[in-house]
Amino acid sequence: MENKKPRVAVIGYGQVGKFALQAIASSPDLELAGVVRRKESLEAELPAELKEVAVTSDLEELKPVEAALLAVPTRVVPGLAQGLLEKGINTVDSYDLHSEIKGHRRRLNSAGKKGGAAAVVAAGWDPGTNSLVRALMETMAPQGLTFTNFGPGLSLGHSTAVRSMPGVQDALAFTIPQGAGLHRRLVYVELEEGAALETVRRQVQADSYFRNDETHVYQVSSVDSLRDLGHGALLERRGTSGRTGNQVFRWEMRINNPALTSQIMVAAVRAGFKQAPGAYTLLEIPLIDYLHGDCEELIQRLV
Amino acid sequence: MENKKPRVAVIGYGQVGKFALQAIASSPDLELAGVVRRKESLEAELPAELKEVAVTSDLEELKPVEAALLAVPTRVVPGLAQGLLEKGINTVDSYDLHSEIKGHRRRLNSAGKKGGAAAVVAAGWDPGTNSLVRALMETMAPQGLTFTNFGPGLSLGHSTAVRSMPGVQDALAFTIPQGAGLHRRLVYVELEEGAALETVRRQVQADSYFRNDETHVYQVSSVDSLRDLGHGALLERRGTSGRTGNQVFRWEMRINNPALTSQIMVAAVRAGFKQAPGAYTLLEIPLIDYLHGDCEELIQRLV
Repeated sequence: MENKKPRVAVIGYGQVGKFALQAIASSPDLELAGVVRRKESLEAELPAELKEVAVTSDLEELKPVEAALLAVPTRVVPGLAQGLLEKGINTVDSYDLHSEIKGHRRRLNSAGKKGGAAAVVAAGWDPGTNSLVRALMETMAPQGLTFTNFGPGLSLGHSTAVRSMPGVQDALAFTIPQGAGLHRRLVYVELEEGAALETVRRQVQADSYFRNDETHVYQVSSVDSLRDLGHGALLERRGTSGRTGNQVFRWEMRINNPALTSQIMVAAVRAGFKQAPGAYTLLEIPLIDYLHGDCEELIQRLV
Repeated sequence: MENKKPRVAVIGYGQVGKFALQAIASSPDLELAGVVRRKESLEAELPAELKEVAVTSDLEELKPVEAALLAVPTRVVPGLAQGLLEKGINTVDSYDLHSEIKGHRRRLNSAGKKGGAAAVVAAGWDPGTNSLVRALMETMAPQGLTFTNFGPGLSLGHSTAVRSMPGVQDALAFTIPQGAGLHRRLVYVELEEGAALETVRRQVQADSYFRNDETHVYQVSSVDSLRDLGHGALLERRGTSGRTGNQVFRWEMRINNPALTSQIMVAAVRAGFKQAPGAYTLLEIPLIDYLHGDCEELIQRLV
């Protein structure tokens, strides 16, 4: 039997795309088909790490492609994923608009069933692995309160959202935990010539990524010295198992954000190959499906 | 459509059985069929909380029974589960001999397929939910070291193993974490008249529950004042996502042991109803299956 590895295309080459290449290279069971970038990016000189990689603006040139890892802004994901799924290509995204995930999953579920492909949606760390931790905590103590605390750290999704706003040259958005699941957002912006800080501030504070949190917007001449990919999360639950209260659970991590996001997405690519056509959040897939290796060996080692 | 709740029998009435009754009573989607105890136990006066419950030594009297929660010593589990599965009754156990789980799952898988029933095996907190955390950590950072630290706390499985040894009247076994996944076991025994401490000590230290750890055996006149159901665990991983090292993860919990174990087993009963005939470790079941409620509502709330 030929032991052919499935070929995975990375679409988009921001922070997550860059680290996704390393995560695919570290996965013994997956092969990189290539990277898809916008036409404009192809005109610039290739970064060194892409010299040995197929880079194109047209996915068709990378055929065969069994799955696509969508390292693109959240708001670009739905249309892109739908088209790929209908062509029979599995997708993985880290769509991060919590309130929209239900509808996103539903639409990709139809597209996947139509094209005979599987989508794994919201496969980052939040939404994503933190969602798994929240479900686990609730399994163990069904009544109680869970607090999800983010950071301190640079939020990629929030930064991208600000960067796309008119008047903004570049931007970085930091998340500062205040405890009990409350956060401050600190947004540092480089403005385009003639842009007014107050206009940008109002736009940021009205955006769905920011409007529920205390958000401060600061103008800086350059965001470069603020760039730091470290991030973290602390999930806490105190709850009741049966009728016994005071059951206490904590999940904490300190991580490089795009390295973790892309690693989780690569695990989701693997898991996607084991699912029937349709769309899945991480909650709907057995944990063993994310791991490389023989099922009984994994059970022996991890259970 | 009739919305009939599946009926669950609790087999065994030690600590886990007792707390399982509370966990089932707190589950809006499950109904208690009754409790199965040994004939000898039925001769003693009923504990107050069993006055309103069907208690019998014969499962047949509780019919219909769709699932059995096996709150019995690990070494009794395999034979009991096999018989139930072949009769078409789902089982959940908290079988805790790590090295034997693969074979146990395989045998129950055959029995389940034969009887058209599903078994969820090793469904406690370790093996069990800690196994899920280990798998999650490895998904997020495939290369690295995970340390599982237990306690300090009273280990029910270890205590039961000692209690069944000749010469032992009663026993409690405590687990003390030493860091980096190493532990001391402190075993307190009440001896039967004429039993020699040294003989019991050697037997404990040779048992598969104890032989890999530094184990101390102490004789006491009564273990009652040592009884405390608190326990805990700390899982730590430092690993690499893609090619980025120093990714750090921690899972910590402080819990009432039988309350948590039985709550997890009840969640596994629920999940068992959603699986095809066969046997499953917690790793092989999507997390959403353990939770009560509508799939899209759970996604909305937890993802």
